[in-house]
Amino acid sequence: MSFHSMWAELLPIGRSPASGGYRRFAWTAADAECRDWFRAQAEARGLAYELDRNGNQWAWLGDPAQGDAVVTGSHLDSVPDGGAFDGPLGVVSSFAALDELRDRGARFGRPLAVVNFGDEEGARFGLACVGSRLAAGQLTVEQAHRLTDADGVTLPQAMAAAGHDPDAIGPDPERLARIGAFVELHVEQGRALDLSGDRVGVAGATWPHGRWRFDFRGEANHAGTTRLDDRRDPMLPYAATVLAARREARLAQAVATFGKVAVEPNGVNAVPSLVRGWLDSRAADQRSLDAVVTGIEQAAREHAAAHGVGLDVVRESFTPVVEFDHALRDELVRILGGDTGLAVPVLGTGAGHDAGILSGTVPTAMLFVRNPTGVSHSPAEFAAEDDCVAGVSALADALEGLARA
Amino acid sequence: MSFHSMWAELLPIGRSPASGGYRRFAWTAADAECRDWFRAQAEARGLAYELDRNGNQWAWLGDPAQGDAVVTGSHLDSVPDGGAFDGPLGVVSSFAALDELRDRGARFGRPLAVVNFGDEEGARFGLACVGSRLAAGQLTVEQAHRLTDADGVTLPQAMAAAGHDPDAIGPDPERLARIGAFVELHVEQGRALDLSGDRVGVAGATWPHGRWRFDFRGEANHAGTTRLDDRRDPMLPYAATVLAARREARLAQAVATFGKVAVEPNGVNAVPSLVRGWLDSRAADQRSLDAVVTGIEQAAREHAAAHGVGLDVVRESFTPVVEFDHALRDELVRILGGDTGLAVPVLGTGAGHDAGILSGTVPTAMLFVRNPTGVSHSPAEFAAEDDCVAGVSALADALEGLARA
Repeated sequence: MSFHSMWAELLPIGRSPASGGYRRFAWTAADAECRDWFRAQAEARGLAYELDRNGNQWAWLGDPAQGDAVVTGSHLDSVPDGGAFDGPLGVVSSFAALDELRDRGARFGRPLAVVNFGDEEGARFGLACVGSRLAAGQLTVEQAHRLTDADGVTLPQAMAAAGHDPDAIGPDPERLARIGAFVELHVEQGRALDLSGDRVGVAGATWPHGRWRFDFRGEANHAGTTRLDDRRDPMLPYAATVLAARREARLAQAVATFGKVAVEPNGVNAVPSLVRGWLDSRAADQRSLDAVVTGIEQAAREHAAAHGVGLDVVRESFTPVVEFDHALRDELVRILGGDTGLAVPVLGTGAGHDAGILSGTVPTAMLFVRNPTGVSHSPAEFAAEDDCVAGVSALADALEGLARA
Repeated sequence: MSFHSMWAELLPIGRSPASGGYRRFAWTAADAECRDWFRAQAEARGLAYELDRNGNQWAWLGDPAQGDAVVTGSHLDSVPDGGAFDGPLGVVSSFAALDELRDRGARFGRPLAVVNFGDEEGARFGLACVGSRLAAGQLTVEQAHRLTDADGVTLPQAMAAAGHDPDAIGPDPERLARIGAFVELHVEQGRALDLSGDRVGVAGATWPHGRWRFDFRGEANHAGTTRLDDRRDPMLPYAATVLAARREARLAQAVATFGKVAVEPNGVNAVPSLVRGWLDSRAADQRSLDAVVTGIEQAAREHAAAHGVGLDVVRESFTPVVEFDHALRDELVRILGGDTGLAVPVLGTGAGHDAGILSGTVPTAMLFVRNPTGVSHSPAEFAAEDDCVAGVSALADALEGLARA
């Protein structure tokens, strides 16, 4: 089955007619359709299909027990109203690369596998990379059992409803120990390749990043009758903090975003009692990130105090810089550069991935495919088919180079 | 039953243990408890109880058919996490005033009634004063049938579930034609009485007020990987507009509030595609209000354009200045001033009330009771018991003066 045909099969699954975006959330009906598709692709190629204890799907060419496997893959779930490429491009390209290698008559000295990691985006339960985190022991079973979606459904309940045994989840060191190299192909989530004129690049490091919750606590009051001077309106310091975040990020050549807000009581005619804003910030290095977040928090405290509003800042998550395996990265650059003498660009990235989670346990690398607008996590996310095909060939080269007999 | 006992009976109904605030929303169980309480108060006093077609409750002393009735009352529902006084103070004071008049041995030449208007706050279906609007023909049956709560329950479904026939609703001109004067007592939602040192005041006019929805439309994107220069982030012009609203309101000695926000997709790691903010603004006169809203909208357009963000501004509701009946107001001032020679303060108000809705059909007036902090629509809303008792006496004086034989 061609790249094009596989892509066309996946396209309608979980797509919202209203937004044109995808809603493939973990353990939902759309997720199950994606999983059925993965299994069918494995079986159609005669690959050995496995579903692991954490809900990650594997398709094996060769004997996993041999060890030192070369694994590729990504995820099939999406953010709310996400695009078609983030995740699926890596999985589809993995099967397509195996097809290309079969057509080339490539022979392998190491087992190969394609993987679909479950719940990468964390759209439903609020934590990203649940499947790979569980496998790598970076999320405990107790923590996972406490995850709850917006409707109050717990992760174990959602798993059970989808036919997966929630008591089976947990660390999977033996499975990860079979892997000698993991290569994840992903649509680029920025414009570096577009600006450099390359179709494909190799990941350098993932920027350190974190999430901070800012709780501005004021006093609920009637919006029509309360004099301005008698108000303690938390919306005002929140607004000033949003603007401060942009200024601080620009100064540090970093990014800072308030993309999620919760307001109480959230009534049109009520001065809010609480405005809770979540800051996502990332920078090229730890020192820059510290400077950005410290600057934002300081501005928030000054504005809160000026309005008689209380402020609590809580760091909800933090991921230090993730360096991908240097030897594997250099080997990929060598393989992809081939005889051309052209340098393959090595890109930093602000996004987290399953490859980043696994990088503490397994040598991992990432390939990026050009995204002409840089748009991601949106229905407008895009990669040209020519570039996708170039990505498949690059991935095939990488797998062949790593696993050749 | 004393003011104190009635107050104590109502206190626990619909109170959230978490916030200490009230959640007495239209056609819910808490609302039904409040209604049962009203009916029991009516029957305990031998008043003739009526439930009208729109769900408003009436308790009659004398024959309604006689006409030219003097009616008092307010509402028992609440905003989300509202206080104990907004609404219930008027209803409890009405019954207490009838008790005081009975103790005085007062005799009446006009029928009297206490009313509890349904769904005054609009907390559930988003439109305030539904009971009085329907009765006065200011809300059509078709419009009312389209009202829907946050769970997708329509007003007719909610009414039917609470045992009220939704097909019965509609204008009630004959019932309103029986009313010669309507006097609503309400806790003050500001600090004018506290600043002047008075316990009770009379309403002058209700400020013109409206609600405007600001839709800032940008482009959803990955918060970690999208360069600042490639973003069209609607949170930034929203934040700048919140700050502009405060500046414009201060210049015009008006009020302007962004108390409700909805963000899409509202993800921590997503640049939003949409930030929708609701502006509530009110001013002493139409010209000042126009200046405030025009200034805010102009600032919003400039900031949106600077960020490549689209903006739609929709006026969702508007209420022009409401002048209460001047003759009735002057008569109340005369009655309440009595032999003391003291001037009773006449207050403007930024809040809408059932009395404002009825003022187009029936001569209406309002009494305000001192609120020492001015806090309203919050669990911290308060009036001292001495001031409440003074309010009851003032209301009794007003009813006796208007309805004496």
